[in-house]
Amino acid sequence: MTATCQRIVLASRPNGWVTTENFRLEHVPVPAPGPGQLLVRNHYLSLDPYMRGRMEEKGGYAEPQKLGETMIGGTVGVVEASNHAGFAVGDTVLGVLGWQEYALSDGTMLRKVDARSVPLQAWLGVLGMPGVTAWYGLNRICKPKAGETVLVSAASGAVGSVVGQLAKLAGCRAVGIAGGQEKCEYVVAELGFDACIDHRRHGDVKSMTRALREAAPNGIDGLFENVGGTCLDAALACMNPFGRIALCGLIAGYNGQDIAIHNARALLVSRLELTGFIISEHLDAWPPALADLVPAVAGGRIKYRESIADGLAAAPEAFIGLLQGRNFGKQLVRLT
Amino acid sequence: MTATCQRIVLASRPNGWVTTENFRLEHVPVPAPGPGQLLVRNHYLSLDPYMRGRMEEKGGYAEPQKLGETMIGGTVGVVEASNHAGFAVGDTVLGVLGWQEYALSDGTMLRKVDARSVPLQAWLGVLGMPGVTAWYGLNRICKPKAGETVLVSAASGAVGSVVGQLAKLAGCRAVGIAGGQEKCEYVVAELGFDACIDHRRHGDVKSMTRALREAAPNGIDGLFENVGGTCLDAALACMNPFGRIALCGLIAGYNGQDIAIHNARALLVSRLELTGFIISEHLDAWPPALADLVPAVAGGRIKYRESIADGLAAAPEAFIGLLQGRNFGKQLVRLT
Repeated sequence: MTATCQRIVLASRPNGWVTTENFRLEHVPVPAPGPGQLLVRNHYLSLDPYMRGRMEEKGGYAEPQKLGETMIGGTVGVVEASNHAGFAVGDTVLGVLGWQEYALSDGTMLRKVDARSVPLQAWLGVLGMPGVTAWYGLNRICKPKAGETVLVSAASGAVGSVVGQLAKLAGCRAVGIAGGQEKCEYVVAELGFDACIDHRRHGDVKSMTRALREAAPNGIDGLFENVGGTCLDAALACMNPFGRIALCGLIAGYNGQDIAIHNARALLVSRLELTGFIISEHLDAWPPALADLVPAVAGGRIKYRESIADGLAAAPEAFIGLLQGRNFGKQLVRLT
Repeated sequence: MTATCQRIVLASRPNGWVTTENFRLEHVPVPAPGPGQLLVRNHYLSLDPYMRGRMEEKGGYAEPQKLGETMIGGTVGVVEASNHAGFAVGDTVLGVLGWQEYALSDGTMLRKVDARSVPLQAWLGVLGMPGVTAWYGLNRICKPKAGETVLVSAASGAVGSVVGQLAKLAGCRAVGIAGGQEKCEYVVAELGFDACIDHRRHGDVKSMTRALREAAPNGIDGLFENVGGTCLDAALACMNPFGRIALCGLIAGYNGQDIAIHNARALLVSRLELTGFIISEHLDAWPPALADLVPAVAGGRIKYRESIADGLAAAPEAFIGLLQGRNFGKQLVRLT
């Protein structure tokens, strides 16, 4: 009798909001590794906003997710069997093995990670793509100097929370935007931001602009943009001359609606520099980013929070919650 | 009896389109230079789109033009009297002496220029702010490599025409956007661009995008944006990954209307870099720019065209024409 395991495939493409019907849970045999392969049992799956883009037929910057195939996703797990010289049974590994409990790998995109000084799943969040995204956008694009002000949207999220804490460690004033009082309090009280604005209380550009001027009385020098829309238009109005904008996400427009920058004039008038980026294209940033992040996380100078859904079957709902801002901290799915 | 001369002051601020009533022609005595001063007779006045911004009460990046004072403007002229050790009678000088026939100067912002190998008024256009703007935005922001494609809007204008010719000299494909068949033909036949699109024939984003894909079959790597609006949205859709955008002007919005970037998603999806700039803040660019431009202009490798209005009284109409795209080439006013 063959042991079986679960995986989730893309069943259909979303039309606007993602629904659970876009996914299908399948039971498949646990695969056996061939020559040069290894078998990984995934312990945690990472859920990230970029997955929404992959669900579109016309992909954005990456190949679209194919229908009927296992959803893409970052994972951490433990090697259970290995015919690969580089990996042994018991190794803890970080990979992109998708929405499934078990996966084969030939070692491509698979990396052994330390799970003693930090928890294994930290490699999916604060020490993974979100953490390195934060580090890159802040240090390579926003380039803040001590005394400057950095604004980050989605500030309680996996990326935003690291942006603000790194900005504080660099001697900057850190201002966040988040949804709801609880998240805003966490951003200030737990993460140590200087201020955090609740975008639910400032739904239009005028109101958000007023709130930003209060929270950033010296103007904004570096903007790490995860959201777009009203927040971005208001932030543009508050940017200092020669400000730098790292355009990391436009989550406000993930369902295909128009996410215009209405305040384009500010880009010219304030001589701003705006750079869109995708961290997977900057692999050279990983070593310096981790050199900063690992000791800061192990030493407690950078804090993080996780939203953990239990079991693969809970992944679709958790993903939808992520897109709607219902998660609080890095969204993970525990698979063991 | 004191000799008199003419000047034009800002009489009122425009409400939408600029009208001739916003200006007032005054007759004033020709001033006499005090200690350390010199008297310049202006031969040509430069008219430039930035002046529209100065006419607003709330200036953009610069101080607003004051009511009742001489309109700001770049000029070339000849020294007629001098109490300044650095300038002698007969010197040809470039300055920012405003919309007037005579002006005093203490030498600030005044530069002696060669009027033998190139015509004096070239220092206001192809060798002046427009030319250096073109050089800076292209070389320092668009950074095109041989074989890449550069797109420039307002391509027959003082800035755009130089952008495209410099791009050609750098081994790039140069594509322009201009208003009307005559300008488009000039851009291709006279200036040597590879293609030029008439925006009057492509008023919506879809149509303009199709035209751009045809004119830039390999996509756009560098965009020099002078206009904004439909042209910019369409260009964004055609940008190659890691494309660079020099945001130099948003003339589509000079009357205060919303000039949204609707295709903001392209900035992220194509990982673009957009930089707003104002050439007056990059004085260090002047020497290397002129080192490239002066021999190219003197040798005929960079061509230019002038629209010359006769007499100071014609300046307001000529300026309004410039804002409406009625000029063809660098707009000047002859004052002698």
